[in-house]
Amino acid sequence: MALAHKKLAPEYVPVGFTDKKTIAFSGQDRVPILVDGGTTVSDSWSIACYLEDAYPGNPSLFGGGAGRSLTKFVDLWATRTMFPYLVRLVLCDVVEHLDREDEAYIRETRQQQLGMTFEQLRDQRDTQRGPFREILGPMRSLLRRDAYLSGPTSGYADYTVFGPFQWARMISPYRLLEDDDPVHAWRGRMLGLFDGFAANAPGYAT
Amino acid sequence: MALAHKKLAPEYVPVGFTDKKTIAFSGQDRVPILVDGGTTVSDSWSIACYLEDAYPGNPSLFGGGAGRSLTKFVDLWATRTMFPYLVRLVLCDVVEHLDREDEAYIRETRQQQLGMTFEQLRDQRDTQRGPFREILGPMRSLLRRDAYLSGPTSGYADYTVFGPFQWARMISPYRLLEDDDPVHAWRGRMLGLFDGFAANAPGYAT
Repeated sequence: MALAHKKLAPEYVPVGFTDKKTIAFSGQDRVPILVDGGTTVSDSWSIACYLEDAYPGNPSLFGGGAGRSLTKFVDLWATRTMFPYLVRLVLCDVVEHLDREDEAYIRETRQQQLGMTFEQLRDQRDTQRGPFREILGPMRSLLRRDAYLSGPTSGYADYTVFGPFQWARMISPYRLLEDDDPVHAWRGRMLGLFDGFAANAPGYAT
Repeated sequence: MALAHKKLAPEYVPVGFTDKKTIAFSGQDRVPILVDGGTTVSDSWSIACYLEDAYPGNPSLFGGGAGRSLTKFVDLWATRTMFPYLVRLVLCDVVEHLDREDEAYIRETRQQQLGMTFEQLRDQRDTQRGPFREILGPMRSLLRRDAYLSGPTSGYADYTVFGPFQWARMISPYRLLEDDDPVHAWRGRMLGLFDGFAANAPGYAT
């Protein structure tokens, strides 16, 4: 979505969790990776900063001025505060949506990170939905006032928070939000951006 | 600090918690209240927006562009997510720092809001310090990279997060942060801004 925001249309290369050889050229072992001419950049935030600096004439991802630092705050909140709550709700469903060769890898690494089995996650997830909705408080209040976290138009702050929601939608039918939640309406707007870029990806209609 | 940032030097009028008559002219019963010529504005965020719009030639509080919305996210995070954790650490000390006529009011309203007595708060606060430090994760990561939440220079995002820290410093000797925490170093920078504006207010050296 950051690329679409910048009016760039890349060629996409799907990479499986355990398909580390394909991405070894980048000098590290995680996606996403951007290759632009002779430049290789990995890590979502680094890619966003690269795009903003390499394409200054295209629409801004950070909204100018202090926007880059403030957007990084939202990015860190999404990663460090929101995401761990979301994981507890949907990760248990991921095993049904993996390529077979990735299943053992994901089970082992994720269960170790979380300190519990996928079955334990599933058993307790109904008790975790309230805390997840509660932690969305700041964005919910903001979305009562503005269409997007970045203001009247979307920006990287929206894309970085939406990413985990899109991941959840792709791996789990579990209902995260009430219909009348401003976050639900925002997610709907996000799904529709760029001619339904996110809505057109495989996913559950929740 | 928002006024100092805007290079404005107001006359300050101290108002006690129960001194509602003094502020009745504002049409509501809470501080802060700004009176600027014929205009009266209450609520910190509304005051910040008023200052930004009324004094566009003075240094920007939001950093321009999408900064206002993104700063509001930080403001809401400080109020809704961070502050409740901080309250559990220091509120029990507030009764020793109140004017006598305010004590019953504060005890009653705050204990009702929190659903526990100040004595219960004190008994359990050592167990609440870890979660408080954990919830600071996003700002801690950001402050490893930049001097301020707004980037290389401070902005309203910093002032709105610092406000609760300054309140804590004024009412409680309780140690919130480790010396090597980037948030501790940031708080030190905030205390020094505008010729030690915040450092010169009465407070504990923690």
